Amino acid sequence: MFTVNARCTCGPHEPFMAYKVERRDVGPREVLIDIAYAGICHSDIEHAHSTRGKTRYPLVPGHEIAGVISAVGSEVTKFAVGDRAGVGCMIDSCRVCRNCLDGLEQYCSGQRVLTYGSIDRHGNPTHGGYSEKIVVDEDFVLRIPDGISLQSAAPLFCAGITLYSPLHHWRAGPGKRVALIGFGGLGHVGVQISHAMGAHTTVLDLNLAKKEDALRMGADDYRATTDRKTFEELGNSFDLIISTVPGGLDLDAFLGLLALDGTFVNLAVPAAPLSVSAVSLLANRRSIAGTRSGGILETQEMIDFCAEHGIGAQVEVIGADEIDDAYARLHAGDVRYRFVIDISTMKSG
Amino acid sequence: MFTVNARCTCGPHEPFMAYKVERRDVGPREVLIDIAYAGICHSDIEHAHSTRGKTRYPLVPGHEIAGVISAVGSEVTKFAVGDRAGVGCMIDSCRVCRNCLDGLEQYCSGQRVLTYGSIDRHGNPTHGGYSEKIVVDEDFVLRIPDGISLQSAAPLFCAGITLYSPLHHWRAGPGKRVALIGFGGLGHVGVQISHAMGAHTTVLDLNLAKKEDALRMGADDYRATTDRKTFEELGNSFDLIISTVPGGLDLDAFLGLLALDGTFVNLAVPAAPLSVSAVSLLANRRSIAGTRSGGILETQEMIDFCAEHGIGAQVEVIGADEIDDAYARLHAGDVRYRFVIDISTMKSG
Repeated sequence: MFTVNARCTCGPHEPFMAYKVERRDVGPREVLIDIAYAGICHSDIEHAHSTRGKTRYPLVPGHEIAGVISAVGSEVTKFAVGDRAGVGCMIDSCRVCRNCLDGLEQYCSGQRVLTYGSIDRHGNPTHGGYSEKIVVDEDFVLRIPDGISLQSAAPLFCAGITLYSPLHHWRAGPGKRVALIGFGGLGHVGVQISHAMGAHTTVLDLNLAKKEDALRMGADDYRATTDRKTFEELGNSFDLIISTVPGGLDLDAFLGLLALDGTFVNLAVPAAPLSVSAVSLLANRRSIAGTRSGGILETQEMIDFCAEHGIGAQVEVIGADEIDDAYARLHAGDVRYRFVIDISTMKSG
Repeated sequence: MFTVNARCTCGPHEPFMAYKVERRDVGPREVLIDIAYAGICHSDIEHAHSTRGKTRYPLVPGHEIAGVISAVGSEVTKFAVGDRAGVGCMIDSCRVCRNCLDGLEQYCSGQRVLTYGSIDRHGNPTHGGYSEKIVVDEDFVLRIPDGISLQSAAPLFCAGITLYSPLHHWRAGPGKRVALIGFGGLGHVGVQISHAMGAHTTVLDLNLAKKEDALRMGADDYRATTDRKTFEELGNSFDLIISTVPGGLDLDAFLGLLALDGTFVNLAVPAAPLSVSAVSLLANRRSIAGTRSGGILETQEMIDFCAEHGIGAQVEVIGADEIDDAYARLHAGDVRYRFVIDISTMKSG
């Protein structure tokens, strides 16, 4: 057992503060990662504020982790000291259910262990990437290819895979028309991936403020959802719409944009139920679906794909003492497009 | 132009009465069908009662039509006098949109002409199968194979295709687990088709009253939805659930029965929106979809499949003067499993 510098919050309205996290000694099949950058995800804020009333404090968030391996257990075969490595939302699962055996650990029917805010198989609370080091089973560690910086890679382990997985599953590619609702942390990565997969890619955002950025990242079209014409002109045109926004959408209006056999994928988990008219679905044989991040194999596939196509998160790097400010700005939508914490600034904590 | 005996209703609360329907002369590419049986579909009742407030009266319902061709136009190539023929929900569509060209006329993006309650391309109201004869373009007529009686075939042109199409589209077959909610006019045909396709088929109905019938028709399992254990024991188990009931379901409870990548297909058009939790969808990457009947090619495929597998509607034959009584009984769920009108009883009308 050893301790590392971290940042935690101790209650729904408490600021982040310096904290010492205990990390277990590296087991035979585990690796120690020296964290370089940790992304700040919207769900970090929800957990920190205990939006669902379930957070255990002190909480050390962070499930968009990129760093370098500094130690490996005696039986580790996949990694060596010095390898660039990432960790996403999960660090363990039951490993024996059908979904785990199929590489779909995100749908584990046993017990997934989340990177923070969970209880691991030793009975200890898990603490995330807002910390200097983390110990993880090698089976839940991703290899970061050369050609992508650690700071651009970090957010891909949540934002990236959360978009890559549905784009891949619902077959975004040449001849397909994809729309992404929202152009923030998730959307700006989704545009790059969808474009690289070969799909015609449209962004639907509240206004046109980020249009130039989106076109530069590969969007073919960018429309304001506050403009009535958007819904008239794009009716029945998309094969796949992925909503990256927290909720509150008029789903029937967006379903009207789907072509025959089109699918609307909802990523958010709003408190209110999703509500749709049966007619919106039966016209054009449309579907609404949900999806949960991606499995480990698919996450590796995603980061390799991103490296190959020059895809990365566009980040704003902050110091460890700027987390509260970053949360406030993220909550206000004031970031282009993902905050990552430079963990080297934590040393003095 | 000529007239034939029919039954119509003249208002939301009016009984059915004898009526003379005008039929146009048979055009070059049209056939005249002497109707033998017309099924009574739930949507007939909705139209007759103007549930949506849009019905034009007098209304002659009926879109489950089986009979024999008694005349053909000069350019007809697919049918001859004496052929057994059926008509379903549609008698025309735009024929030039992408969906029509792909044989998916039910999703015509132009103007579909429904068998009754619609306006045809000559500007005349359409009158359905509660009548002695009907004139239809040969492209919207189905051939009824030998080996299936006309009275058992008639309901298949709505109830049959409405189940066959989603079962086929979502790939019911060996190794797949299908559940059908409701065991009435649609469900009892759906069980036979799903079973014949090779899927493991479960019926979910309010109680077990019809269990023996369902097992005899090919169901592998039959559970009561009023029994809490049904939802505990069948959790995460189905690849496809098709709801044939009018609405009012706790969708989250039923979504919980879907396995990974499972789809819930809703056939009804309730007035209230469908409401589901985002979590119900993202767990197991589930979908909710809608579907609208089937195209003409697929309807022919359906009736051929049914004849080949000995599938037919189990019907209760009524006379033309028993329609009001049948509506009341159907509304009360008191029919096993489909009423069909013996059109020969209309002669004296």
